[in-house]
Amino acid sequence: MEFTILGTGSATLQLTRFPSAFVLSVDNECILIDCGEGTQHQILKYKIKHTRIRTILISHLHGDHYFGLIGLISSWSLNKRTEPLTLIGPPGLLEIISIQLKYSGTILSFKVDFIETKSTVSEVVYENDLFSVTTIPLIHRVPCNGYLVTRKGSERKIIKERIPEDFPLPYFKKLKDGEDIFDELSGKTYKNSELTTEGDPEVKVAYCSDTAYFEEIIPIIEGADLLYHEATFTHELIERAKSTFHSTAGEAAQIAKKAQVKQLVIGHYSSRYKELDGHLSEAKGIFEATLLAEEGLTVKV
Amino acid sequence: MEFTILGTGSATLQLTRFPSAFVLSVDNECILIDCGEGTQHQILKYKIKHTRIRTILISHLHGDHYFGLIGLISSWSLNKRTEPLTLIGPPGLLEIISIQLKYSGTILSFKVDFIETKSTVSEVVYENDLFSVTTIPLIHRVPCNGYLVTRKGSERKIIKERIPEDFPLPYFKKLKDGEDIFDELSGKTYKNSELTTEGDPEVKVAYCSDTAYFEEIIPIIEGADLLYHEATFTHELIERAKSTFHSTAGEAAQIAKKAQVKQLVIGHYSSRYKELDGHLSEAKGIFEATLLAEEGLTVKV
Repeated sequence: MEFTILGTGSATLQLTRFPSAFVLSVDNECILIDCGEGTQHQILKYKIKHTRIRTILISHLHGDHYFGLIGLISSWSLNKRTEPLTLIGPPGLLEIISIQLKYSGTILSFKVDFIETKSTVSEVVYENDLFSVTTIPLIHRVPCNGYLVTRKGSERKIIKERIPEDFPLPYFKKLKDGEDIFDELSGKTYKNSELTTEGDPEVKVAYCSDTAYFEEIIPIIEGADLLYHEATFTHELIERAKSTFHSTAGEAAQIAKKAQVKQLVIGHYSSRYKELDGHLSEAKGIFEATLLAEEGLTVKV
Repeated sequence: MEFTILGTGSATLQLTRFPSAFVLSVDNECILIDCGEGTQHQILKYKIKHTRIRTILISHLHGDHYFGLIGLISSWSLNKRTEPLTLIGPPGLLEIISIQLKYSGTILSFKVDFIETKSTVSEVVYENDLFSVTTIPLIHRVPCNGYLVTRKGSERKIIKERIPEDFPLPYFKKLKDGEDIFDELSGKTYKNSELTTEGDPEVKVAYCSDTAYFEEIIPIIEGADLLYHEATFTHELIERAKSTFHSTAGEAAQIAKKAQVKQLVIGHYSSRYKELDGHLSEAKGIFEATLLAEEGLTVKV
């Protein structure tokens, strides 16, 4: 998977930072996570193929996480997109989008499946052949979910050159499932370990924005290959973080450490921070494998 | 007045053009006209003082004319703005804004007076000491109004150094109204023309976007000091202009010529035009005093 950052800002407008938006690519599909104002501009700038985006996850209904969605959807319809879209987000989102489409006289050129999230319980809200999406209930001022995207592991991979020419077709499925095979007709035994290699492992990316420090998410994100966690403030503003239901860089790192994730990316920076060295050193002091989010950065997972 | 262009694009997203948004400053006040996605970014970039914007005019509910409004209003509230706002726009606008404020749990820090426009009849929808706003019903795919902003003319200006020391206070008002004065007590006559000069004239700025070629607007905008008229296409796409209820540069110029305005600004360019020489020469061929809209350009009126 690849995790591309389109916006690192928070609620207050900043000329140098866009609000939250991220693209997670899973093989040929893209998942857009949050969609602040200007996201369609960022998608164009960073040359992300619109038609590959089949799923959009919206965490909550604060503007810096979704005000760009109606513009993106409208543009897709103007461009006569036909690929269906799965839109996952909190109650109210569909109503907000629908009312704007109604007044602009727009009938979308593509199908939208809306999946409404609950913010009280973690659950698998979507699944396809490639990946599943699990909600991560967060603590914020309005109902808010993070998302865990799990790319499914693949079956064992067959080493073609080791397969005999007369190998019966039905045995391929058994090999992929990891079984040894005894062929009654020929009396031969085929050892799975000689004909296959391990499949791709399951890969997990967790997205947590916006939230106060909240240890209840740890069992859900445990061992994730990548965790994006908001870090609006640094430690000297921990009281402000608490009162606004946001996190500090140190708190994001604590979560990463306790959940034993492999990589942490922090972002959602308050506009008061022009330099981010403080964020980075604060987080790295607790969890070394920390990266600062920056617009246009792609992290391979 | 000063007319500042924040966006010259049309419905299709363009990396090099922002969607429609304009700031008309009238003395110390600013009027924001339309508010496409990213307008708050443009306001910040061009250093327009937010608190001076007391009036917002929205022409219609196509996204490239209003998707930036909820972000702007939300940001103002985050910044604890207290200056009241008069919001003028079509039916549906207040509903769209209100529902988004509701779901984000926002109670605005400032008062909003909403004035709903009709799109069938031209009327004065707002007036204060400085200016009045008249709607200009246009022809588009959804209800749509242009706006005529009329800065009021001032009273005659008194030439202070010519006023005698014992000049009675009540006479000032009469002088400003243009009257000659006969002072019964002293038997003196004061000639208005000797003690005053002309006041500032009325100034008119007309904004017409989006619309098909529509001559019925001419009586409303006649003699305007500045006309902004959309010119989405050039003449070779006149059939497309007709079918989408937009105008060509030549049609915008025809309107300017027939309405005998003093200056025409054209904009709302289709994304297919990278160069705008065609727009300019087509319009100038019909109406010489034509300017191309460009982001950040301020036209003094």
